[in-house]
Amino acid sequence: MEISKAISNLSDLIACKGVSDSGEGIQESVQFLKQFLRSHLNAEVTIVKAENDGNPIILATVKGIKKDAIMFYGHYDVMDPGDLNKWDSDPFKLTRRNGKLYARGAGDNRGQLMASIQGVEQYLNSIEGMPPQTIMFFIEGEEEQGSRNLFATVAKHTDKLKNVELVLAVDGSISSSGKHVLRLGCRGLLGFHVQIQTGSHSNHSGNTGNIMSNAFIEFQKILNQIYDFDTDKVLLPHFYDGVKEPTTQQMDWIDKLPFNVEKINKSNGFKMKAMTKQDYYANLMFRPTFNVSGIMSGYTGQGVKTIVPNQLTAKVDFRLVGEQNVTEIEKGIKQLFKPYVDSGLLTFTFYHQIPPSTSEINLDTIHLLQKSVKNIGEDLVVEPIMPGAVPNYVWTELIHKPVITLPLANFDQNNHSFNENISVKAYESGINIVSATTQALSERG
Amino acid sequence: MEISKAISNLSDLIACKGVSDSGEGIQESVQFLKQFLRSHLNAEVTIVKAENDGNPIILATVKGIKKDAIMFYGHYDVMDPGDLNKWDSDPFKLTRRNGKLYARGAGDNRGQLMASIQGVEQYLNSIEGMPPQTIMFFIEGEEEQGSRNLFATVAKHTDKLKNVELVLAVDGSISSSGKHVLRLGCRGLLGFHVQIQTGSHSNHSGNTGNIMSNAFIEFQKILNQIYDFDTDKVLLPHFYDGVKEPTTQQMDWIDKLPFNVEKINKSNGFKMKAMTKQDYYANLMFRPTFNVSGIMSGYTGQGVKTIVPNQLTAKVDFRLVGEQNVTEIEKGIKQLFKPYVDSGLLTFTFYHQIPPSTSEINLDTIHLLQKSVKNIGEDLVVEPIMPGAVPNYVWTELIHKPVITLPLANFDQNNHSFNENISVKAYESGINIVSATTQALSERG
Repeated sequence: MEISKAISNLSDLIACKGVSDSGEGIQESVQFLKQFLRSHLNAEVTIVKAENDGNPIILATVKGIKKDAIMFYGHYDVMDPGDLNKWDSDPFKLTRRNGKLYARGAGDNRGQLMASIQGVEQYLNSIEGMPPQTIMFFIEGEEEQGSRNLFATVAKHTDKLKNVELVLAVDGSISSSGKHVLRLGCRGLLGFHVQIQTGSHSNHSGNTGNIMSNAFIEFQKILNQIYDFDTDKVLLPHFYDGVKEPTTQQMDWIDKLPFNVEKINKSNGFKMKAMTKQDYYANLMFRPTFNVSGIMSGYTGQGVKTIVPNQLTAKVDFRLVGEQNVTEIEKGIKQLFKPYVDSGLLTFTFYHQIPPSTSEINLDTIHLLQKSVKNIGEDLVVEPIMPGAVPNYVWTELIHKPVITLPLANFDQNNHSFNENISVKAYESGINIVSATTQALSERG
Repeated sequence: MEISKAISNLSDLIACKGVSDSGEGIQESVQFLKQFLRSHLNAEVTIVKAENDGNPIILATVKGIKKDAIMFYGHYDVMDPGDLNKWDSDPFKLTRRNGKLYARGAGDNRGQLMASIQGVEQYLNSIEGMPPQTIMFFIEGEEEQGSRNLFATVAKHTDKLKNVELVLAVDGSISSSGKHVLRLGCRGLLGFHVQIQTGSHSNHSGNTGNIMSNAFIEFQKILNQIYDFDTDKVLLPHFYDGVKEPTTQQMDWIDKLPFNVEKINKSNGFKMKAMTKQDYYANLMFRPTFNVSGIMSGYTGQGVKTIVPNQLTAKVDFRLVGEQNVTEIEKGIKQLFKPYVDSGLLTFTFYHQIPPSTSEINLDTIHLLQKSVKNIGEDLVVEPIMPGAVPNYVWTELIHKPVITLPLANFDQNNHSFNENISVKAYESGINIVSATTQALSERG
């Protein structure tokens, strides 16, 4: 594949925009991809209406000799570019500088998506006639909105996916070491927004201290029932059910991953607590988190107001691992909150409900993928679990098929931020990796 | 005293402005009062330079036959009027509507100050020659800035105050029941601002959850060492030393105070926890508080950001009672914070350091004041302690003389807010009360 042509193709998709928040360019993006998949892969393309009037899904099928299919999952929607002044070039005009291609979506996920499509194209061009196995693309348009209608839509269309044997989720970043990675699962996420209200307005802390309930203190009383700050343990019933220590195989994979404390600290701007490499990866992959991502109560401006705050808002979340049960944990939260909700003190809503997801992948498959990547001069290490939450559970729960996450963007892609990019090297090697892995998977019989 | 003339005098002072925050009209206010005290009371007036270039203090002396003096304490400075659109009339033009006089400072403290001066004038006009006792006015210009230079300035000028026998602090509001009140002390206040920093920026909670310290969680770990949220007890060493239950006499005074739960709830916009009248007043006068007046960490806008917050700011304060020791409690806080300060996690500054203050007042004096007020047809109940913090400790600690707080403004004066006011009734009865009490105190021998 000629790289200049591949970049030009990406440039055309970037120009379609496709901001899922505002809806700008969604239709243009869908039409472009529909045509592109037809003309470049000779694929059958169906546009699937998402539930609740969500952005449409593009489903493409390249028929193989066998009906059994490997399916690539990606998304065509992008985040709003935000403050344009922070971009060094137009976010919707792919711009090459210093070996990188800059644009909104260059890394997340249009660059990776186009690399996947053209990788499959490259493979198809290398063979005569139909591939041994069917190859599908499932491209959604609401990933940047938390894939909010994905589960319901897939649930309605499982018949269209009945031949899928393996899902390849092409999203995320490769390792900071530059090595390519393959992920076999991801953590889940359960988040809620809570609001405490102890009065219609704040009051003078002299005249109402000890008399009026302080919204922050009320929250603390509740939070201390959710989390033990001395032992760093979540106190909700059954919370730790399903948490598992890594297996020997997973520990072996972890052994092969990079661990450069200085580099991690520098790139994140903090000083990590002392921990071993094994602990580091166990913390990220095999242990749940308790997190307060935002909290505000009372007077937070300059100077001082001697008040008892009447209101508090907070955002609390848990990353979940192994077989932790979102529904069971939610139940515990609801039960704990019930008396406070009944008394009118507290209101809450869940905003994230993503179960953790793990795929049992045949070791032969993993070795096959590693070998195929090695053949084109690249390294492919295994990250047993991705620390973030992606909607892999949709495939494991609804079609009961394994998911492998194969990210293609460089570590420093700046996704969701300004000057998002994909390096030319990552884009090019992405095309080659998809071509090689598709060949390996398709031809293994 | 002709009320229309008294209102016109107040109007003239209001027009001088005197915002201590911006400095606007401070000099005009000082000059006006200097002239007013000279012409109306024939007083000797000295302008005392405050320490640290603070706003000047006006010290006026009306010589009596004896050198022993009663001294009125008040302040001429006012809060910034804030958003002018929220005022129904110009805050610096005294405006009469529905029996009330509206202006910034009408209640806090210019209306009360002018009522005091003219009350003394009324008394002096009723006698021939010098009063039996010397009468002084101490009028500061930084009360709305927390009287930040008062202690240091008074400390330098105690010689000027050596004849003072009793301080009458004329500030605050009378009871919601409409009864006049007399206060024998006030709670103290110790407040600090704390900042936690766990990194140079927030990070993705998937990629750094369990790895990066969450600023809010770090704060909680520290806060749980300051306060036991289960038992509602402050855990600092020696915190409760000096806290005392009310005496029989104080309980008797409390018995005579109003306690209308519905009214309190309505005016404060909350539902009070169930408590007896005795508990209510003990909570406000004899028990310390733990309060978080403001806290902010992480993402507090609309929607969600999956981050680990790197920063937290909070404002924490304690109301102090009895003989609780500000210095000792500060020491406990500093000791607790030391390791976190040393590690670079935490920074803090104290912003309030007001000791609680109680005056032992001869019961005869209290009865004398009550009788003199009854003679002019008003009621005067005793509130043993004022729940808020005023700088009474300056007098008890530096000149070792008792302080009686005698507020003259109506309960709903809206001080520090828009449409601040003093009712014509409160203003007029203030003049009469000061006249009657000055006579009683001055002539008791």
